[in-house]
Amino acid sequence: MSTDHPRQAAAADEPRNTAATPASPELQALRERIDGIDREIQALITERAQFAGQVGRAKGELAAAIDYYRPEREAQVLRRVVDRNEGPLDDGALVRLFREIMSACLAQQEPLKIGFLGPEGTHSQQAVYKHFGHSIHGLPLVSLEEVFGEVESGAADFGVVPVENSTQGTIQSTLDMFLTSRVRICGEVEMRVHQHLLSRGGRIEDIERVYSHPQSFAQCKAWLRQYLPDAEKIPVASNAEAARRARNADDAAAIAGISAATVYGLKNVAGPIEDRPDNTTRFLVLGRELFPPSGNDRTSLLVFIKDQPGALHHVLAPFARHGLSMNRIESRPGHTGRWQYAFFIDVGGHANEDAMRRALDELAEFAQEVRVLGSYPVAIV
Amino acid sequence: MSTDHPRQAAAADEPRNTAATPASPELQALRERIDGIDREIQALITERAQFAGQVGRAKGELAAAIDYYRPEREAQVLRRVVDRNEGPLDDGALVRLFREIMSACLAQQEPLKIGFLGPEGTHSQQAVYKHFGHSIHGLPLVSLEEVFGEVESGAADFGVVPVENSTQGTIQSTLDMFLTSRVRICGEVEMRVHQHLLSRGGRIEDIERVYSHPQSFAQCKAWLRQYLPDAEKIPVASNAEAARRARNADDAAAIAGISAATVYGLKNVAGPIEDRPDNTTRFLVLGRELFPPSGNDRTSLLVFIKDQPGALHHVLAPFARHGLSMNRIESRPGHTGRWQYAFFIDVGGHANEDAMRRALDELAEFAQEVRVLGSYPVAIV
Repeated sequence: MSTDHPRQAAAADEPRNTAATPASPELQALRERIDGIDREIQALITERAQFAGQVGRAKGELAAAIDYYRPEREAQVLRRVVDRNEGPLDDGALVRLFREIMSACLAQQEPLKIGFLGPEGTHSQQAVYKHFGHSIHGLPLVSLEEVFGEVESGAADFGVVPVENSTQGTIQSTLDMFLTSRVRICGEVEMRVHQHLLSRGGRIEDIERVYSHPQSFAQCKAWLRQYLPDAEKIPVASNAEAARRARNADDAAAIAGISAATVYGLKNVAGPIEDRPDNTTRFLVLGRELFPPSGNDRTSLLVFIKDQPGALHHVLAPFARHGLSMNRIESRPGHTGRWQYAFFIDVGGHANEDAMRRALDELAEFAQEVRVLGSYPVAIV
Repeated sequence: MSTDHPRQAAAADEPRNTAATPASPELQALRERIDGIDREIQALITERAQFAGQVGRAKGELAAAIDYYRPEREAQVLRRVVDRNEGPLDDGALVRLFREIMSACLAQQEPLKIGFLGPEGTHSQQAVYKHFGHSIHGLPLVSLEEVFGEVESGAADFGVVPVENSTQGTIQSTLDMFLTSRVRICGEVEMRVHQHLLSRGGRIEDIERVYSHPQSFAQCKAWLRQYLPDAEKIPVASNAEAARRARNADDAAAIAGISAATVYGLKNVAGPIEDRPDNTTRFLVLGRELFPPSGNDRTSLLVFIKDQPGALHHVLAPFARHGLSMNRIESRPGHTGRWQYAFFIDVGGHANEDAMRRALDELAEFAQEVRVLGSYPVAIV
């Protein structure tokens, strides 16, 4: 460009590609149809915001979002969106749009304050936005303890913390917080996690060694067999360590999340490359209340029992008897003499539904203590 | 909770607050109205997506988003949204919703790939989402050079880079990239930047010293006079340095962005506390094309001239003559013998409009070279 003659340079003002083509009559007609649709959408969103404002005012003159936010109601709205959807947009895109619409309607007075394990840019923050939309006030916090503490004290309306990964398993430090905290679980969020092949040069043909955590290798086995069958696979302690090593050689690559590319100055060779489309991290939404059933709920329990023969059977039997399916059970050794074991249990259903009530009553006969951590809508897409 | 009797613990299953109150008939009626509205909104969004798909197919069987993304068209749609808006949602909330709707409709085939200065969680990433919505594929990159390079090579469809801050002024390294790069500017994004008072203890009554950058003190002068009139104000080199120092004493605080709270383990005492509501960072959207006028555009020029008497007057005069208002001018010393000065100039209007054409022709008579970096829609809220 710097060799352009002035006149030529001035002539370069003209857009020089398809973008400059005047819209055809058909395109123009399509755009006018879309403009008409946008007018209607806007009128409806405005009407929706007015009704939502009335719901808020029904709760008090200047009700803050926390006073009329109802997770079970949001879950019902979103399930109907999914049920009605026949494309062309996928369920995820439509759910995201309706989350944002509800988020904007809810934030008319004072937006929800949501604490999460910071800093900004973490998967936790993404989970916050996925669940609550963007019309909220995010509070990045430095530790799990602080997220639980800010929710408990009311400084945050809700909190979002990771609790398990489909590959790495349960995050014990999160579960252990419930042993002492009185916060409740009022939602769950599932987030896909992607793996990428990263290298300094960014060219797959240069790669002779691949570093990664063994679990990440396992997740990308088929992809590696197809595209890098001859490369040496070198397991290391973490994907961050893998990225750090890949930085130092032209023939090395790492399997890691895309964010490691920025941190370690690597290029994205390929990705997502995980074989299974269900590599997912699950987050819990923390609050101070239990909410009514949404129609498709999960209940998280913390059960303290004495160590005695058949203890596990006694814990499991009531749920089986009442036809409730257990999604997960984790035992934790006791820290005090009062009880020998704590079980974290996820069961399908809501604590206010009859079958669950009866199961919990029967469990209470046997257990030292049964604590309902929360009954909340099952994650939606 | 751990002292609960088993029976009591089981009884705690009952939601115990307003959330459990069955919906009143009025609330129920409101919810049904909202459900009806949601059905209509969904039908319209679906119809919109179908029409948008037709626009895409008109461009080719499987047109990628880049082939039919039109920034001038999006700007027109959003301006109409703002013009029509009479509340209760504010313009920002409605524009955000329509950005997301357009983003989802556009991403039906292959979403736009947007490069930005990473890592994730930066203001640049927020600017990407603000401008393109969330139905895009974000590429966090390690340097300005890489953002320009990935856009130029086509690896990214667009890039987003910061170019000036209302307090700190122009980011020279961004402007200098245009001296050698051939990318075009096809949009601008403005983002509010907030200041917070952060301290270890989080209580304003403990604070006797405040650290910050002098510019941040200046931004929060009225707030400090009102709430911390007697605290000592200690200027330091950066807000990060301020946060680092505040970490070490109970009676100290820092003025900084909220993200510094996480990084340095501080609590948010108050914020946003800047006096002027216009503390803003401006970003440029980089692409490879010039797009047609949207009706309210800005043109960025790079003008190379020889050092001679009256040079600046010669640069400015054509715009004044044709009634074009200049928003900004920055001169940069030349690096070669070919020209002595380069001017970066922002002018109201589009390079395809008559007045601008004539002004550019006149300027070209005098200048060594006139390069149109881009003509693009003025930022919308």
